[in-house]
Amino acid sequence: MTLIDKARRGQATPAVKQVAKKEGVDVKWLIGEIAAGRVSIPANNNRRGLDPEGVGAGLRTKVNANIGTSRDRCDIRFEKKKLGAAIEAGTDAVMDLSTGGDLRAIRRAILDACPKPLGTVPIYELLVSNRSKCADKIHIDIEELFDIIEHQAEEGVDFMTIHAGLTFKAVELLRQKPRVCGVVSRGGSFLAAYMAIHNCENPLYENFDRLLKICRKHDVTISLGDGLRSGALADAHDRPMMHEMIVLGELSRACREAGVQAIIEGPGHMPLDQIEANVKMEKSLCEGAPYYVLGPLVTDVAPGYDHITSAIGGAIAAAAGVDFLCYVTPSEHLGLPEPEDVRRGVMASRIAAHAADIVKNPRFAEWDRKMSVARKALDWDGQKALALDPRAFDRFQPLQDKKHKKGDKTCSMCGEYCAYQLTDNVI
Amino acid sequence: MTLIDKARRGQATPAVKQVAKKEGVDVKWLIGEIAAGRVSIPANNNRRGLDPEGVGAGLRTKVNANIGTSRDRCDIRFEKKKLGAAIEAGTDAVMDLSTGGDLRAIRRAILDACPKPLGTVPIYELLVSNRSKCADKIHIDIEELFDIIEHQAEEGVDFMTIHAGLTFKAVELLRQKPRVCGVVSRGGSFLAAYMAIHNCENPLYENFDRLLKICRKHDVTISLGDGLRSGALADAHDRPMMHEMIVLGELSRACREAGVQAIIEGPGHMPLDQIEANVKMEKSLCEGAPYYVLGPLVTDVAPGYDHITSAIGGAIAAAAGVDFLCYVTPSEHLGLPEPEDVRRGVMASRIAAHAADIVKNPRFAEWDRKMSVARKALDWDGQKALALDPRAFDRFQPLQDKKHKKGDKTCSMCGEYCAYQLTDNVI
Repeated sequence: MTLIDKARRGQATPAVKQVAKKEGVDVKWLIGEIAAGRVSIPANNNRRGLDPEGVGAGLRTKVNANIGTSRDRCDIRFEKKKLGAAIEAGTDAVMDLSTGGDLRAIRRAILDACPKPLGTVPIYELLVSNRSKCADKIHIDIEELFDIIEHQAEEGVDFMTIHAGLTFKAVELLRQKPRVCGVVSRGGSFLAAYMAIHNCENPLYENFDRLLKICRKHDVTISLGDGLRSGALADAHDRPMMHEMIVLGELSRACREAGVQAIIEGPGHMPLDQIEANVKMEKSLCEGAPYYVLGPLVTDVAPGYDHITSAIGGAIAAAAGVDFLCYVTPSEHLGLPEPEDVRRGVMASRIAAHAADIVKNPRFAEWDRKMSVARKALDWDGQKALALDPRAFDRFQPLQDKKHKKGDKTCSMCGEYCAYQLTDNVI
Repeated sequence: MTLIDKARRGQATPAVKQVAKKEGVDVKWLIGEIAAGRVSIPANNNRRGLDPEGVGAGLRTKVNANIGTSRDRCDIRFEKKKLGAAIEAGTDAVMDLSTGGDLRAIRRAILDACPKPLGTVPIYELLVSNRSKCADKIHIDIEELFDIIEHQAEEGVDFMTIHAGLTFKAVELLRQKPRVCGVVSRGGSFLAAYMAIHNCENPLYENFDRLLKICRKHDVTISLGDGLRSGALADAHDRPMMHEMIVLGELSRACREAGVQAIIEGPGHMPLDQIEANVKMEKSLCEGAPYYVLGPLVTDVAPGYDHITSAIGGAIAAAAGVDFLCYVTPSEHLGLPEPEDVRRGVMASRIAAHAADIVKNPRFAEWDRKMSVARKALDWDGQKALALDPRAFDRFQPLQDKKHKKGDKTCSMCGEYCAYQLTDNVI
């Protein structure tokens, strides 16, 4: 039985109880949301040592950090450093997007070291396998692909991105009106090219029932990939993208009926005034399924700062109902991230998630209130203890300026003209 | 005659023509907006070498960088480094908020070196003067204050923050329902304490006509300060804050009638779902006067990252109609910024401003389209030339990884699995 099956029978698994406790929500309510497909708790049957997290409406907005090797950078120790940086920074989930080196060894090492739900994109393993086996880069051996998926499920991968919603019709729509930035998802681009070359349907769409069987068996959560997410503001909400979202809605229903948890993936690059509409569309078309976006990035012009462009879009998206934010690091559009980029990416996404949670439910604003009380009291230890990133205090050291007088609690910004002190005992 | 006087006669000054050309807007339209008080071009009569900028609806959203000394950090060379960092990063205006050292010498040095509109908060000079002259820290010699204002106007300061809207009634309202974070504006805190101690009205409110005369004479733009801006999410939109905004509306009308340009200052810390309402209130109460906000910061818990919390709020605010964003640096709430913090603060605010401009007017999205075309073409030189911060490419160096094959245009993120290349010539 999967988590959904058990939820439908009113059973609370240890993972459900743990999530309810962490979130401060009622277990019965949580069971109902899981049964209805509005909350997912990615937790593979075969996974050991997992600290489970719930994703969906009514829960804290979660953050995912992508790590993984590529041809140019392929070193397990380096990936473990990035994993450590992501966990230390407070990520709620991790995806291994490796495409270089011994993918299975890397995945095993990450699974062993990661206490949070781990996701993958199985089709990447097919891409890498193709390279060594055949001259035709754009090749899909469906048996091999399902072997890869099954093997990853057996290894304990908690959620998998599957680009089954990108159908041949969408390829036709892409041809009708070419995009500024084309297809920017690697998996999406591969599948679209395959369909275009072979004039055929997406094999993952055609074999979705087979996929559901594997995911049921190991209780893998399917993250329905958005292969046609917009990679430029100019491409947001074009017909191919919205066609895919409709199909994702159908597939999320199929997951639900099969007792398989699902999460829907979303964009991408998008003008900020279109974000709310996008989220409402997903919640409507996918019947309230958890929504997981990459960004959204609200401008295309800021490489080096895309953790910030994404924090803007992510906060707006999460406030509108997005449940899960995939981080974007400062190195996005430029290359693979360093551990410090991973750290900054997670922090920026956590800011976006929390800024949205405050307006989703007043219980999340209590943290801010406590910080403000400490701030007004010039209680620097209290502020550090409450800070999203206590390490920020090590860099700035408010009270350790050379000229600082002993016993003075004001910081170097205002010093004796501290606004808090001017009105103390007066108003 | 002031710029408003001339605009009312249909005269286009060189500054107006320069701004119209830079913005790509019609000169006649711009004159009309200035005459109506909906656009301000801060430009003191006595200022030399100014590259003027317009602030208001229909124009590009502008960014201001605060610099200035404090007791703990007081070095003209250090301030000039921060000024240089702000200008290099692309700020549109600068405010000198110095409260340490020889304020006049510092201001002169900054005025000489700054090509952008320069603003000050004259009451800070009174605070510093009080320290050397009298035991009573909370003291206002109104003649001295107006001498300071007049002297700064003669020096060429383009815009001045004047906290005239914080009245005795607001102090009473503050006492009725205390705030979590009290009064966080230095000038506001000082004036509130003065009124509370002396049981009197704000002398800047009472002598506003005298202020208008000085500002008329030198064509100084008044930035009507928000002394009661919320310094904690919990304090947003309380009665004192909204009372001050009503008074700011009255005073902006007085400025307009006197032919003096005005800008309205706004918060501060605010849950993101309240930002749009705040902006609509300002535009209504102040009859479309340009709106200039500090942040807004959408969470209190992220010291060390407040350039990001502010970029989120700033983007939402500017999209809702804010015209001018005061940057917040990573060192906010912790101490005075270093030049690198200044740079990061300006970049974050420029991202927020541009993300909003894209949805304010389609002409601003052309930049993003060009970047996306260069990105799709894997044209790295083109991307660098178009980037908000070309220096980001020096750090990440997309094509200079050690294992990179010569002639390969893909970056280290996807390498041979580059989504752009997979679909090239196929779709």
